[in-house]
Amino acid sequence: MPTNRQILLDNRPEGEATTGNFKLVTAQTPALQDGQVLVRHHYLSLDPYMRGRMNESKSYAQPQPLGEVMIGGTVGEIVESRHPKFAVGDKVVGMGGWQEYSVVDANQPGAVRKVDTTHVPLSHYLGAVGMPGVTAWYGLVKIINPKAGETMVVSAASGAVGSAYGALAKARGCRVVGIAGGKDKCDYVVNELGFDACIDYKQHKDAISLSKALKQACPNGIDGYFENVGGLVLDAVLLRMNAFGRIAVCGMIAGYDGQPMPLANPALILVNRLKIEGFIVSEHMEVWPEALKELGTLVGSGKLRPRESVAQGLQAAPEAFLGLLKGKNFGKQLVKLI
Amino acid sequence: MPTNRQILLDNRPEGEATTGNFKLVTAQTPALQDGQVLVRHHYLSLDPYMRGRMNESKSYAQPQPLGEVMIGGTVGEIVESRHPKFAVGDKVVGMGGWQEYSVVDANQPGAVRKVDTTHVPLSHYLGAVGMPGVTAWYGLVKIINPKAGETMVVSAASGAVGSAYGALAKARGCRVVGIAGGKDKCDYVVNELGFDACIDYKQHKDAISLSKALKQACPNGIDGYFENVGGLVLDAVLLRMNAFGRIAVCGMIAGYDGQPMPLANPALILVNRLKIEGFIVSEHMEVWPEALKELGTLVGSGKLRPRESVAQGLQAAPEAFLGLLKGKNFGKQLVKLI
Repeated sequence: MPTNRQILLDNRPEGEATTGNFKLVTAQTPALQDGQVLVRHHYLSLDPYMRGRMNESKSYAQPQPLGEVMIGGTVGEIVESRHPKFAVGDKVVGMGGWQEYSVVDANQPGAVRKVDTTHVPLSHYLGAVGMPGVTAWYGLVKIINPKAGETMVVSAASGAVGSAYGALAKARGCRVVGIAGGKDKCDYVVNELGFDACIDYKQHKDAISLSKALKQACPNGIDGYFENVGGLVLDAVLLRMNAFGRIAVCGMIAGYDGQPMPLANPALILVNRLKIEGFIVSEHMEVWPEALKELGTLVGSGKLRPRESVAQGLQAAPEAFLGLLKGKNFGKQLVKLI
Repeated sequence: MPTNRQILLDNRPEGEATTGNFKLVTAQTPALQDGQVLVRHHYLSLDPYMRGRMNESKSYAQPQPLGEVMIGGTVGEIVESRHPKFAVGDKVVGMGGWQEYSVVDANQPGAVRKVDTTHVPLSHYLGAVGMPGVTAWYGLVKIINPKAGETMVVSAASGAVGSAYGALAKARGCRVVGIAGGKDKCDYVVNELGFDACIDYKQHKDAISLSKALKQACPNGIDGYFENVGGLVLDAVLLRMNAFGRIAVCGMIAGYDGQPMPLANPALILVNRLKIEGFIVSEHMEVWPEALKELGTLVGSGKLRPRESVAQGLQAAPEAFLGLLKGKNFGKQLVKLI
């Protein structure tokens, strides 16, 4: 049985998360039972939702238990199998957590899924053709339901969700405008991802200033907005929403550390007859096949070229995760484990 | 031609509205053209939306023009007709405005509609079986879409919209909880309107205190909320919404005077995967026949017994309107003009 390095949640953040909240340990992988497989992880996915799980307070999911391996999506390869449908060498995606190996009961629905790496690199199954891509798809297609010619905006535009959202909205004939932090990210969003415009929120210190930039970038107003960050970005977007606009709320990263994050002017919901809807993609497993098919085609045909930030080795995961929360990553944040 | 007393918007409020914003004038009604009818108003409806129209700022509707008769719903009787489908004596509902008579082009769709007063008193066509009733119906049926056994909450519960909402939700097998101002109103909401409970918001000075009272009144949480007021009531309700709850936003009376009215914790939209949707009932004319039919049946069968606050004479309208904005009315606020 191979030696397995793991990262546990050691204690909960007080305010901002720190590397001290995590603990690296070493364990032996247990012997397999019938129906189980041993997966060697090639990549670990780091995602903003993990910050919410680190808090004790009630959220949509149970808090991450202390002393257990941090939750997380992984892609890897079967290295031992006691399940007839999985063979050594199969490439699979699952929720293996922050560790180098995982033992998975392959009979549990959705616990481990084989993927085809002929046209799509393995790591993309954690990004554009994985949970973040389906997240963008659900918000755009099922909540915003865009019409050709409408203007679609997304925050954290250079990230895994934002880049997929842009490609999906362009494929539907929309004007697509991103919001991102810094000139490099904005250039990438426009030049490589094909957005019509991108606004650097770091150039704006309040919602009024940001909303003026949005007015320029969205001359016909905003019809659909995909919310990843909350805070003043949401305030600014609300000032530019058109009547009957739709907002899909997927993340509010600005509030994860527990600071108050009020919405300045909720009366705009009424004035503009907006629909605002929060969602969690794991509660809508029925759309995954349709969404993954479209996303795989976009990646395979080069219409969606997602960028990745790759940290090296499990021990780099905490620093990379904290950087992600501050927007230091550029594209999908991964940890390479092999 | 009869003499017609009218109330004009003379100047716009700075902060709170006052009687000085209005002006009473006298005019002669003009001679009728072909296709027109002259309506003598029996009742004028006073509604919170009028406050929004008094502001100059962009809202969903054009501002009320200065120097013109205030907008408003009316019921009355045809006293002169040059239209073949309307006869003297017909009872009609329309948007006659704050005046004693109106001349209406009866060919304009929806400008004037005959009503049957056999089972429903004329004044109720401005309330339970009129715009406020349809407003409640649309929010409950089309946005909240309640299931039997769910808990439905409404603010301004003793008013025209709130009372209709309660009856409609009870008819669908829901637990119905109101929020109203003062013991008398709460007693009426429970004893006469048949709500399961009613909370007096005046007994609570912050959102936390109000949310504790909501927890008691809604032991299974809140699945649907109809928002008439905004401010701390909305903050308190958000703390008690169940996962997949729905909020129909119809009014935010707390913000009409222009003071800031932030929403304390928008992250709850994500945590509880809420849907929040603003609407204006006049944009959904297609539902009116179905809604009015159900509302007429509820009133005719005594299952909805709306209360009315009636001010006497056109000159009483401004005071009555300002009282409505402060919650001084008890049930549907009307002005009797005859």
